[in-house]
Amino acid sequence: MNASNASLGSASKRDNPSTEPGESPVRDSWLLSKVRSLLGDPPVEFSIRGGDRVRTVKAPVARVTFASRKSLLSILADPWVRFGDSYSDGTLTIEGDLVELLETIYRSSAMGDKPSRMRRAVDLLHRPHRNTLAGSRDNIHHHYDIGNPFYSLWLGSTMAYTCAYYPTPAATLDEAQTAKMDHVCRKLRLRSGESVVEAGCGWGTLALHMARHYGVRVRAFNISHEQVAYARERAAREGLAGKVEYVEDDYRSISGHYDAFVSVGMLEHVGVRNYPTLGRIARACLGSNGRGLIHSIGRNHPARLQPWIEKRIFPGAYPPALSEMSQIFEPSDLSVLDIENLRLHYAQTLRHWLALYEAAADRVRAMFDEKFVRMWRLYLAGSVAGFSTGTLQLFQVVFATAENNDVPWTRAHLYGS
Amino acid sequence: MNASNASLGSASKRDNPSTEPGESPVRDSWLLSKVRSLLGDPPVEFSIRGGDRVRTVKAPVARVTFASRKSLLSILADPWVRFGDSYSDGTLTIEGDLVELLETIYRSSAMGDKPSRMRRAVDLLHRPHRNTLAGSRDNIHHHYDIGNPFYSLWLGSTMAYTCAYYPTPAATLDEAQTAKMDHVCRKLRLRSGESVVEAGCGWGTLALHMARHYGVRVRAFNISHEQVAYARERAAREGLAGKVEYVEDDYRSISGHYDAFVSVGMLEHVGVRNYPTLGRIARACLGSNGRGLIHSIGRNHPARLQPWIEKRIFPGAYPPALSEMSQIFEPSDLSVLDIENLRLHYAQTLRHWLALYEAAADRVRAMFDEKFVRMWRLYLAGSVAGFSTGTLQLFQVVFATAENNDVPWTRAHLYGS
Repeated sequence: MNASNASLGSASKRDNPSTEPGESPVRDSWLLSKVRSLLGDPPVEFSIRGGDRVRTVKAPVARVTFASRKSLLSILADPWVRFGDSYSDGTLTIEGDLVELLETIYRSSAMGDKPSRMRRAVDLLHRPHRNTLAGSRDNIHHHYDIGNPFYSLWLGSTMAYTCAYYPTPAATLDEAQTAKMDHVCRKLRLRSGESVVEAGCGWGTLALHMARHYGVRVRAFNISHEQVAYARERAAREGLAGKVEYVEDDYRSISGHYDAFVSVGMLEHVGVRNYPTLGRIARACLGSNGRGLIHSIGRNHPARLQPWIEKRIFPGAYPPALSEMSQIFEPSDLSVLDIENLRLHYAQTLRHWLALYEAAADRVRAMFDEKFVRMWRLYLAGSVAGFSTGTLQLFQVVFATAENNDVPWTRAHLYGS
Repeated sequence: MNASNASLGSASKRDNPSTEPGESPVRDSWLLSKVRSLLGDPPVEFSIRGGDRVRTVKAPVARVTFASRKSLLSILADPWVRFGDSYSDGTLTIEGDLVELLETIYRSSAMGDKPSRMRRAVDLLHRPHRNTLAGSRDNIHHHYDIGNPFYSLWLGSTMAYTCAYYPTPAATLDEAQTAKMDHVCRKLRLRSGESVVEAGCGWGTLALHMARHYGVRVRAFNISHEQVAYARERAAREGLAGKVEYVEDDYRSISGHYDAFVSVGMLEHVGVRNYPTLGRIARACLGSNGRGLIHSIGRNHPARLQPWIEKRIFPGAYPPALSEMSQIFEPSDLSVLDIENLRLHYAQTLRHWLALYEAAADRVRAMFDEKFVRMWRLYLAGSVAGFSTGTLQLFQVVFATAENNDVPWTRAHLYGS
């Protein structure tokens, strides 16, 4: 299709075998136009398999085909969840680049007014998965205990499942994950002999890196059983078990005194109502020269996580706006020293993950099934689009106790050779 | 006095010529203890001239002497304003280093519980000077139209009246002010031929620097008549009148389209309720590749400005916490890219200003009077203490429109040669 034969929102009637007797074929095209309109009229072609289609004035970025009128109707009833479910179960198919399609939809729906009104209505009915002690354990188990062999297919050799830091866009995934760990350690100005507490340590990579390269002792907390088992085994194998202790417990159980507090990619699972508690815990475990770093997905303004992601992928997750993150620091008089937004780095990280994931799709299918393959493809592609379009942010926040004057004079040390 | 002969909160009875017949001299010492307790028991000696004194267990940092019981009582009635007024009119005198005394009091009262409860009570009664269009004009006139010759005595050759940026602590004031302007221009990544709008331009220094060294055109807004007159004269003298236009008008009158928005040291005068308006104005004047920078005094958590400063020096001023600053960006979907806290640089800037001010005290006295000299000394010394103790922060916030992907990949360009 090219622009010359397309017209805005037009419907071309075709033979329509899915039309029931007595039903007007016009209604399908109206429904398709409605879907496109709800999404802010992106340059995407929508059709029902073997039936109507709505074209766009521009050359379409991609083609979305619904298996039937029924699948289209189900999406109209709850577009933010059903789009993902329909893609996962194959009743919605896509021709064209999935990331590009999602970027296009994210951009157009951010500009359109109707979807945001609809989204607000859905938000009002939303009851997130609570992050009580037990709720957090269920939520974390749902995502992180899928199986270490699955994650090792596409996270690269570092097994770091958070935004990497690319000194240049040409860096590899593993290089960028290592650079991220060094960026974090330099921001914390770790010195040999110091102690660090880590809240939410994933497969333990950062803790090992800090111990090996910065000479610090680390206590690292995590409630994912599979991740802690993996991390302990790795620490033992690498001869660092005496320097790094992995604790299978909630961040709310952190006690003791440390020189630095670090949390990379846990805040998304904490829940805004618990932010003052997190700040109080960080404050209590730091001395007057204490400093900390929190690295988290965020938002330009408060908004719930994309509902399909929250329902199918990350129950209980919520990326906060800076006004919400402030509730970690302000009640405990912690001083924010430095915030860096790395959203383009997360888009790049996710592109690398997605490429490795696609290369391993057959092995994922053998571990799970086709629906799982499509579901996680959509999650990764949607996340690329979230960060590349500015729908999602990545904030690294460095903080210190209010009275700490032993902080770096400038940030030049982060960029020295 | 040394530690060996001091005792905590003890009162030494002396000849007390200020005691009225029938009045117990014990009451003065009780009052003195009360003052010290209200301030969180700092290691400071308090006394009434020729009368009682309260000593401390530690060697006192300084000695504070009240001219009479009456002046002491007036301070107890409203310590946060009357301390400053009494210092200004000479009914309260200080032996020892003024900055060190104020740092000591800031630190001890931050730790004590009573002052903060008292402060909260005072805050409840507080009616700040509103920043309506007319209110802002009055508030700005009060401070910035005192006279350019006065400010030129102690701001250094740049006439920049905001936090400088010291590449190393050894930099001079003028070097650091110039480095600050370059730091701001690099953060904005200004390119030759671009246009910049500046909200609150002081004596016009940054606008001239941007035009001269970065080849941009600048429209700079300011409602201080004296500052604008000075800036225009300077632009004409330096042959930059064709590149820089100074507009004597409120930031709320900004219109047009620009590549960058910058505001250094104006936000303190905007008022939190106007932050969404400021953000809307910044958003409206930037294209999809727009970016901006706001530089402001801030807080670790919401708290009103020190009441004496607000009353005598900066009516209508308020340094916001980051949660409050977020109300500039979040309602307009502006993306925060980078926040740097430069509070130690502001302490250093203020030390340099205070030294120049003290060296010019005789000329200030000739322009005004002794009370004015003392008032501004206290303001500058108190500001050093505010930043050095972490009571005040200095935030530089870089932001961009949400869809702008043409942002620096890392911050290394800020630190390159």
